[in-house]
Amino acid sequence: MLDAIAFDADDTLWHTEYYYREAERSFTGMLATYDIPPDEVLAVLHRIEIDNLAYFGYGIRGFTLSMIEASIQATGGRVRGADIQAIVDLGRGMTGHAIRLLEGVEDALARLAGRRLLLITKGDVFDQESKILRSGLARYFQHVEIITDKTQAAYDTLLTRYAITPTGFLMVGNSLRSDIAPVLALGGFAVHVPYELTWAHESSAELPADRSRFFEIASLRDLPDLIEKIEEGR
Amino acid sequence: MLDAIAFDADDTLWHTEYYYREAERSFTGMLATYDIPPDEVLAVLHRIEIDNLAYFGYGIRGFTLSMIEASIQATGGRVRGADIQAIVDLGRGMTGHAIRLLEGVEDALARLAGRRLLLITKGDVFDQESKILRSGLARYFQHVEIITDKTQAAYDTLLTRYAITPTGFLMVGNSLRSDIAPVLALGGFAVHVPYELTWAHESSAELPADRSRFFEIASLRDLPDLIEKIEEGR
Repeated sequence: MLDAIAFDADDTLWHTEYYYREAERSFTGMLATYDIPPDEVLAVLHRIEIDNLAYFGYGIRGFTLSMIEASIQATGGRVRGADIQAIVDLGRGMTGHAIRLLEGVEDALARLAGRRLLLITKGDVFDQESKILRSGLARYFQHVEIITDKTQAAYDTLLTRYAITPTGFLMVGNSLRSDIAPVLALGGFAVHVPYELTWAHESSAELPADRSRFFEIASLRDLPDLIEKIEEGR
Repeated sequence: MLDAIAFDADDTLWHTEYYYREAERSFTGMLATYDIPPDEVLAVLHRIEIDNLAYFGYGIRGFTLSMIEASIQATGGRVRGADIQAIVDLGRGMTGHAIRLLEGVEDALARLAGRRLLLITKGDVFDQESKILRSGLARYFQHVEIITDKTQAAYDTLLTRYAITPTGFLMVGNSLRSDIAPVLALGGFAVHVPYELTWAHESSAELPADRSRFFEIASLRDLPDLIEKIEEGR
């Protein structure tokens, strides 16, 4: 039997990237009025986003600040105050959007209720707390952990804190880099649920040669059956 | 004997408000070139900051977004792209400033070492984690808790988690609203260390009529002696 089953949140339980892409579309549309092509705007934005991670971290606020900087750089400083205000409003709108759960999520959690379930998410705590609350899913989880970065050391610390043996730990998530690779390296099980849109930064990772504890499913709907099979095989 | 002694961080262990005021000075200086008087700029900024708390929370990123909005509103949209960029740079600079400890802090913590010390701070987790790391003080604390809001319920949850009885709990901080009032209401001890600059939002609080567990000191330097007196008197 697995001791604990942990879930990533963004783009594993609910849509997140979708809202960022939607904001990017509004943003590039706005800068099109300055005759700057969308792909040029996005190239500037994505470079600034990466540069800003160390200063402004993950989340809506850092993203909004990066859009503002990108609008100034892409327009050579010509961007109007009213458009900067529209960018801030775009960010403010993102903080309260409705939470759309991914397909099969609520069913899978209901079927696994009674087991020891954890939510392990990274990113901006302010955003995450708000989304967990709005999702209505908090009641399924014994522990909710919002961590700065999902490194092997961070997982190791969590497993120690909750007295979970790595070989009895299974992590489910959409990011090879954050959810899969570090857990496999610790000796745990990892289930990859690819999301249609994944930030390039999150999709690159080196996986260990031994893939015997690595699984991939199309939707969380398939998770309870997979867990059953894993436990029968042990 | 007290079970645990907890400390607020911002403007209790290290200067924080000072850096916000410094940024405000740069900000009002910049908008003076648009012929807007500093007190008018600050009035707009402070109103926007309060309005934005629900959307962007505490911390440098929310403050930076509020300065940007204030610059647009105060100038009626005339603010130039280069000045918006300067505001973002101001915010970026704040994320990495040197941590200046308040007078007597390191001595007091060293004298109390060996006791059960907690750090309980609110605000932006990203900012707080960075400051705790840069302060070099993390080693003094058994537990570090960064919470969204320091309400009576939040303290109650923490005390339960760490099995600390309220009557054996002492909280030290500069905010009557966040550090003192909720702890007194729970039946704990509270030590107020007023800071020269305190955000108006934090200085208003209703204290209980019974002040027997409420103390005020000028500097953390006086804390170890005060604790000794409190424990002798019990």
